[in-house]
Formats: sequence, structure tokens, C-alpha cells
Amino acid sequence: MGVQFLCVTSTASPKRADARKNIAAILDAATACLAVDPDASINDIAAAAGVGRVTLYGHFANRAALVAEVVDRAMQVSDAELDAVDLDGDAREALGRLLEASWQVTHRYGGLVMAAQAALPEGDLRAAHDKPAQRVLRLLRRGRREGTVRTDMPLDWQVTTIQGVVHAASGAVHRGELPAERAPGLVRATVLAALTPPGQPVP
Amino acid sequence: MGVQFLCVTSTASPKRADARKNIAAILDAATACLAVDPDASINDIAAAAGVGRVTLYGHFANRAALVAEVVDRAMQVSDAELDAVDLDGDAREALGRLLEASWQVTHRYGGLVMAAQAALPEGDLRAAHDKPAQRVLRLLRRGRREGTVRTDMPLDWQVTTIQGVVHAASGAVHRGELPAERAPGLVRATVLAALTPPGQPVP
Repeated sequence: MGVQFLCVTSTASPKRADARKNIAAILDAATACLAVDPDASINDIAAAAGVGRVTLYGHFANRAALVAEVVDRAMQVSDAELDAVDLDGDAREALGRLLEASWQVTHRYGGLVMAAQAALPEGDLRAAHDKPAQRVLRLLRRGRREGTVRTDMPLDWQVTTIQGVVHAASGAVHRGELPAERAPGLVRATVLAALTPPGQPVP
Repeated sequence: MGVQFLCVTSTASPKRADARKNIAAILDAATACLAVDPDASINDIAAAAGVGRVTLYGHFANRAALVAEVVDRAMQVSDAELDAVDLDGDAREALGRLLEASWQVTHRYGGLVMAAQAALPEGDLRAAHDKPAQRVLRLLRRGRREGTVRTDMPLDWQVTTIQGVVHAASGAVHRGELPAERAPGLVRATVLAALTPPGQPVP
């Protein structure tokens, strides 16, 4: 791939443009299909993208590779959105805002969260959570200094709890057990209660 | 299968006894392998059971069918243990005992929880949680009446939160992020805080 720019010619361009168009169509279709049905097959995705299976497999070696790329792209978009959340002021309030925004981006991708859990190796899933985890960690540290976040639990455990509650909400909405509009408030209230220091009143 | 008892003869018995022995060996090996490595393959499991792939596939159509049977058996054993937990007295205290016991049975099966999440359809996973969920629901209802469990959230959401926190702990221990001996206390403290009514101090 590193030498590709050396062979740019007027005849090669349309072919590469087609490939780019196909890749973009496959990724868009996969994102949409997996959001609705985490078990969507390669056939479903190829059909939705308007390409053949051979074309799809020409760009992605297998379903897991395609899911990995879709998750990677979704994480980049999500990350840019979460970067825009105002994290100044009271750490607990800021965490509440971040949780509601995190819920919105997680929910938008719906079944993709479950597709990723089923198709990707544990290590890739962890990596996908590294950057959001850093953002949460900074707020948890500030909340601990301000005395609004309990300090009798490991920080990592608190991050794990938060991810667990957000994913649990995503699953419950996807299964129709919880109306989507109730989720952000429940995630926020549940997490802030779980972080409240012993002896202090739950907000 | 329904007519099998009609052809019981002295010559048929040893064959069926062998089949039963093989099935038991495969299930034991699968439970042990998946607990250590949720991605354990059919080959790994057959080797650990001391049977060939053909024998294994003679009893289980595919890996998902084997995982489903292993999970089913694990749930039955767990269920018997959880039935033995004393759920009398203060609902919140009883919930704490139930959570610690639930953690112990979940943790014993280790990677099996992750193997199940990866291999089983969503519906089967839900069914596996139905009976434990009923036990938790009874305690939550009692806690609500006693005023120690918040009533401003749906009961189902509180069950979902509890399952999410127990599974998150199981994953964190499996990945080596959390020492197993710290998990029951953290699960208990996190869940009881999450259930505390607004305005009341966290226990």
C-alpha cells in the first residue's frame, strides 16, 4: 500500500474510485444492518450495499474483519461527539452529561454493540473502550478529589461498572424491555448512585 | 428418542452406557475448557474429553449446541446453590447475601459466561437468566416495601443493572483487571448503592 501513490495514472483512478465507493457502501450498509440485527449475515449486508458477495470478500476477509472496521469507524464518530461535551465544573454533573451523551452514541448504533461483543476478540473490544474510558477516568479522579465520588473502590472497577450499565441499557432497549427515551436518565441516576460515597445521600 | 426404551436389551446397554459416559466426559471437558478460555474450539474440547471429533459431533450438532448444553447444566447446578441462600430478614441484607453467592457461582464458570454471550442467541441468554431474575425480583419488591430500594426506576431495569454489574465483574476478573477475592464485596457495595433511594445515605 505504501507505494500505491507511485502508480497513480489516469486509467487506474476510476477503478480505485469504484473500490472506495464499494467499501463506503459496504460499511454504511453493515452499520445500518447490524444496528437493527446484530446477527445480520454477510449476505444481508452485501444485498443492502448493492454489491455481490465476491466484491465484499474482496475488501473484507470475513465477517469479523468487517464488524471490526464498522466498530472502528463508529468509535471515531462517537469519539468526536463525546469530545464536544462540556466537562467543566462540578465533576458529578459533568459525568452526568457525559453519560447521557455516551448513551446517545451507544444507542444510535443499537445492535452493533451486541454484534461487536459476539464477533470481536476480547482484546479488540477493550481497545475500542480505551479512549472513552480515559475521559471517564479524568472525571472520576476529579470527583474523588471533590468528595462526590467514593474512594473505597478501584477506579478501574468504577469504569467497568459504568460500561456495564451503559451496555445493559443498550441491550434492554434493543430487546424492547426499556423505552429508549427513559434510558439516559436511568443510566445517569444509576451510575451516580453507584458512585456516591458511603454515608452520603444519593442525588 | 421416544421409542428408545422399547429396544432395551442386554446387548444394547453397554453401547448406551458408553454414549452416556462420552457425553458426560464431553460436557465436563467443555465446562472446564470454556471456563479457562471462552474461545476454546471443538478440537480443544474433544481432546480434553479424550474422544474424537466424530464422536463429539455424534452427540452435539455444532459448537453452539454444546455451549447451550454446558450453560444449561451450569445454570441447574447454580440454581440449586442459590436456592440454599437464606433470603429471610431485611431485604437489602438478603440481597447482599444473594449477590455474593451469585458472584461465586458466576465466577466459578469463568470464561463460560463470555462463551455463552458469544455463542448463544439473545433469547437463550435471556431464558438462562429467568429463574435467577425471579429470585432477585422478589427481594427488590420486598426492599421497595421496606423503603430501602428506590422506587423511581422500573424493577426490570434494576434487575438488568444487577446482571450487568455481576457480568462486568466476571469479565474484569477473567481479564486479570480485578482480583477475584475483591469482586463479591465490590459487586455487593456497587449494587446496594445503585438501589439506594434518592436522599438516603449509601450503606
